[in-house]
Amino acid sequence: MSFSFRRLIFGSPLPSWRELHERLPKILALPIFASDALSSVAYATEEILLVLILAGNATVKSPAVVFISAAIVILLAIVATSYRQTIRAYPSGGGAYIVAKDNLGDYAGLTAGAALTIDYTLTVAVSIAAGVAAIVSVYPHMAVYRVELCLGFIGLVALGNLRGARESGLLFALPTYIFIASMFTLIGAGIYKELTVGFEAASAGLARKEIPELGLFLILKAFSNGCTAMTGTEAISNAVPAFRPPEAKNAATTLTWMAVILGIMFLGVSYLAHAGHVVPSHMTFKDGTPNPHYQTVVSQIARAVFNKPSMAWFYMLIQFATAGILVLAANTSFAGFPRLASIMARDRFLPRQLYNVGDRLVYSNGIILLALLASLLVIAFKGDTHLLIPLYAVGVFLSFTLSQAGMVKHSNRIRERGWQRSAAISFVGAVTTGLVTIVIAATKFVEGAWIVVLLIPIFVYVFSKIHQHYIDLGNQLRLTPEDRFTPVSNTVLVLTPSIHRGILRALEYAKTLSPDVRAIHVESDPVDTAIMMERWEQWGGGIPLVVLESQYRSLMQPILEYLEEAKRERKNCVITVVIPEFVPAKWWHKLLHNQSGILLKFALLFRRNIVTTNVRYYLER
Amino acid sequence: MSFSFRRLIFGSPLPSWRELHERLPKILALPIFASDALSSVAYATEEILLVLILAGNATVKSPAVVFISAAIVILLAIVATSYRQTIRAYPSGGGAYIVAKDNLGDYAGLTAGAALTIDYTLTVAVSIAAGVAAIVSVYPHMAVYRVELCLGFIGLVALGNLRGARESGLLFALPTYIFIASMFTLIGAGIYKELTVGFEAASAGLARKEIPELGLFLILKAFSNGCTAMTGTEAISNAVPAFRPPEAKNAATTLTWMAVILGIMFLGVSYLAHAGHVVPSHMTFKDGTPNPHYQTVVSQIARAVFNKPSMAWFYMLIQFATAGILVLAANTSFAGFPRLASIMARDRFLPRQLYNVGDRLVYSNGIILLALLASLLVIAFKGDTHLLIPLYAVGVFLSFTLSQAGMVKHSNRIRERGWQRSAAISFVGAVTTGLVTIVIAATKFVEGAWIVVLLIPIFVYVFSKIHQHYIDLGNQLRLTPEDRFTPVSNTVLVLTPSIHRGILRALEYAKTLSPDVRAIHVESDPVDTAIMMERWEQWGGGIPLVVLESQYRSLMQPILEYLEEAKRERKNCVITVVIPEFVPAKWWHKLLHNQSGILLKFALLFRRNIVTTNVRYYLER
Repeated sequence: MSFSFRRLIFGSPLPSWRELHERLPKILALPIFASDALSSVAYATEEILLVLILAGNATVKSPAVVFISAAIVILLAIVATSYRQTIRAYPSGGGAYIVAKDNLGDYAGLTAGAALTIDYTLTVAVSIAAGVAAIVSVYPHMAVYRVELCLGFIGLVALGNLRGARESGLLFALPTYIFIASMFTLIGAGIYKELTVGFEAASAGLARKEIPELGLFLILKAFSNGCTAMTGTEAISNAVPAFRPPEAKNAATTLTWMAVILGIMFLGVSYLAHAGHVVPSHMTFKDGTPNPHYQTVVSQIARAVFNKPSMAWFYMLIQFATAGILVLAANTSFAGFPRLASIMARDRFLPRQLYNVGDRLVYSNGIILLALLASLLVIAFKGDTHLLIPLYAVGVFLSFTLSQAGMVKHSNRIRERGWQRSAAISFVGAVTTGLVTIVIAATKFVEGAWIVVLLIPIFVYVFSKIHQHYIDLGNQLRLTPEDRFTPVSNTVLVLTPSIHRGILRALEYAKTLSPDVRAIHVESDPVDTAIMMERWEQWGGGIPLVVLESQYRSLMQPILEYLEEAKRERKNCVITVVIPEFVPAKWWHKLLHNQSGILLKFALLFRRNIVTTNVRYYLER
Repeated sequence: MSFSFRRLIFGSPLPSWRELHERLPKILALPIFASDALSSVAYATEEILLVLILAGNATVKSPAVVFISAAIVILLAIVATSYRQTIRAYPSGGGAYIVAKDNLGDYAGLTAGAALTIDYTLTVAVSIAAGVAAIVSVYPHMAVYRVELCLGFIGLVALGNLRGARESGLLFALPTYIFIASMFTLIGAGIYKELTVGFEAASAGLARKEIPELGLFLILKAFSNGCTAMTGTEAISNAVPAFRPPEAKNAATTLTWMAVILGIMFLGVSYLAHAGHVVPSHMTFKDGTPNPHYQTVVSQIARAVFNKPSMAWFYMLIQFATAGILVLAANTSFAGFPRLASIMARDRFLPRQLYNVGDRLVYSNGIILLALLASLLVIAFKGDTHLLIPLYAVGVFLSFTLSQAGMVKHSNRIRERGWQRSAAISFVGAVTTGLVTIVIAATKFVEGAWIVVLLIPIFVYVFSKIHQHYIDLGNQLRLTPEDRFTPVSNTVLVLTPSIHRGILRALEYAKTLSPDVRAIHVESDPVDTAIMMERWEQWGGGIPLVVLESQYRSLMQPILEYLEEAKRERKNCVITVVIPEFVPAKWWHKLLHNQSGILLKFALLFRRNIVTTNVRYYLER
């Protein structure tokens, strides 16, 4: 029953030889590994505008958003070019962790690992929250259930991943392509409309005092917020072995596709937001009550562009495709984090349970762990994208920087043909993303980036403590030439509170274990003891019966004392304590019996050279 | 450390031979076993008045309360006389359970047992709640903490009892005698004042519409409420063996003392309540908020009689003595219930854990169980005496009836000298209390007595199910002449995921257990297996290594399959599975290891003829 239920939910187990075949063609790899990056267009423009509006509504109408977006697209181009080097250099999966560790040492690798762990979790939380925001834009009354919706989606994505990689690809490809197609349509139609009749978004937004100054700090902060568009760029380079052969070439091509598509969509949305004079808004007011007029920026644009009733279906399509791809973005982390965790576990920086491949050929424990962490984050930040954004992107850019710095060293070390060019590209990338990391951490420090700045060293510390434990463990368990198989002797003590069928079975079993078997009886009433000794003649099987007195009616004390005595009798001797136990036919029957066997077992748990063994006798009714 | 802390709280263990000396002289037995009955005067009059007031304030001023109290005192005299027979006939402790069971059969005994169990619990809850009410009368602002106060007192009394009987007696004698003395003083002073200057209680009570009619139903209901004064009358007859020899004579004398003292105090308080025109009140209003003018009836009388400021200390003394004896009344149940439970456990109608005497020579489990049940009741009924009263007394009078009916049969069976007189007394008692039981159940049915009427048959059912289990158990475990000590063989399988020091220890141990030892290795990687087999030559100690393939990377499945195979190899063979396990030096290290040993152990738990044994290897760091 339990097995077939398990199979219904998670699918049947897959044999190990199928692993090689669970590889993805580019057409499926793109939705799985690029949906994170692509989906960022759903919120990146909005997050830029939310900063710009602090300088007044007039600023929103300025083309600042377009210029900032253009700067980010240039940054994207640099990073994508740089990561193509990484894919070639690390065809077995060159995540920031591996590249930094290989080239810059363990601590750089662990720092990248910590940054990635945090950002995988944030990607799930932010993407799902933004996906729910797209749905809430259509149905404003759903705003009160946003946390529940987020948790439901996280559970769904986790389940999909527990079933296995290929099925995830098939299940998730369609929404991504619908999203891409509909966004391109929206951008095309929007530009056409702007150039012909013009359009104006209905303001659902914030009314602000006009502060005419747009200072450098706000521009940098808007840029930092916009950098969330680049999260997920590294996913493809982490996942090279999941591609069909030739893996590196396919992965690099997919990365380029992704960067181009993302750049066009992001710039397009930002241009339309500017052209339509979109004013952003918050999903909830400061007091936590939902804003009934909330809409995402994309929703505002789509409503304004397709404002004829006959096109309402297309608006709905855009919203649901957006929600769909954002759920998929979370899926990217579910593909990426378990892989990273497995590599770090193999290197003994994370618990070895994360290394195991489950029976559907996926890293089940990593998937479950990520779902739990993201759920906690969603609950803590009330499912609100805007509250999560300040924590986001610090880790991503830190790992970009470490990875590319590692690649500079790598090119310099390997010195393949054209290594100077490679090193230069990586160097430019590392310096640029390094500066951006500082900008992001500084401009968003107070609002939440400090949490990440604090967590990264803590994670690094935990990773190295875990590592130390495994090293210590290995040293303690390793067999040396001095270790020998040394014969030991064994004294077996059977607890015999009385003599009945259950005890008889235990005595028969104990007799097989050692030539030195003794039955131990703690006397509660001398009359009973006399009767027992008489019956012992008949059923004791020749095993000597040791009767212990108990002045205080305690069962434990005399047994423990006798044990210590028996231990001293011989050198190199293990004591086996056989505890007979009957297994009741109904669960509630357990309540009707003394649990002294369990208590004794617990008392012996911390004593060395003592082995306890339960011999069970099954009751039929 | 844990042991010495235990001793500080519960006292040192007492040896078994001290049991005979833990007997109580009459002067100590009275406070322990009679405080329940005596303390009822703190609330019985009040409960009568609370019914009478339903018929209007004028009724309170009528002498109805005095007549009803007088009727109850006559009833008390009948029951006390009747119970003196029981004490003589059952010197080993003649609770209603034993008397009914001996003379009327198992089901009558179980009914009495159920009734007593319910009433012991209610005695604790009602008495403690009434004690807290006495304190709240002095400090009205304490009313909001009444539940917490109740729970604190229950805990304190339970603790006192866990320390042992004699200490309870010494600790508790003083408040009882202070209570008796102060109540007699109050009654004396009150009657004197009434006969000279007269007195009038300050009304803290209920203002009612005048409904001039006091119908039969209300009179019977007031009588039912007043019958709570008689709860606890049976305590002495249950506890005859706790008295110093001659037990029966001493117990009977103590019972007479108790009945006389109780009768005088109850009639006295009821007379003064009438004389002072006391109007009762509720501690909380209907909406649950505390009534700031609440006072118990005794508190109103005491304030009115000792209304000079110079006598305020005496008022305080009465209140605290009342609270004190009510806490002691709860103590009566803590002496009585564990004794009853132990007898019923001996007869196998309750779990045998309740039969055990703890290391302070008290029935610890029974004490703890009663404290838990009473605490639940206090929480459910918000620590309010008036809400608990409708449940109370049904059980007491049912057990009176069964006990005395049993005594009629007993006298008729034994036919000692004067048996006709004895039988007649018991008969009158049984008929009277039987009628009263019906009156109580009927008049208070809707307000809560139905719960008790429902619970009693449920308890009887549970008792008989428990009994059936013990009978079945005995039949299954009993050795018959056909049972023989039959030699069995033993195949030992050691799980060896790899070969290291911990495994080596487990192999050395397994080698002692049987000539047929095999090491089982589930292959995860054929390369590892090859290395392992090489190392096996050196450290395997000659034990054959069985390598199992696992297509689905499952550890469990191949082992379970091999087990079934090994079982079939030989007839009459037990399989011992040795699971090596290392014990980490720090708790958090556990999180870093697979728990496959535990999982396997759990999977084997429900298979027959398989014994699992953990061999532990201790890590030093």
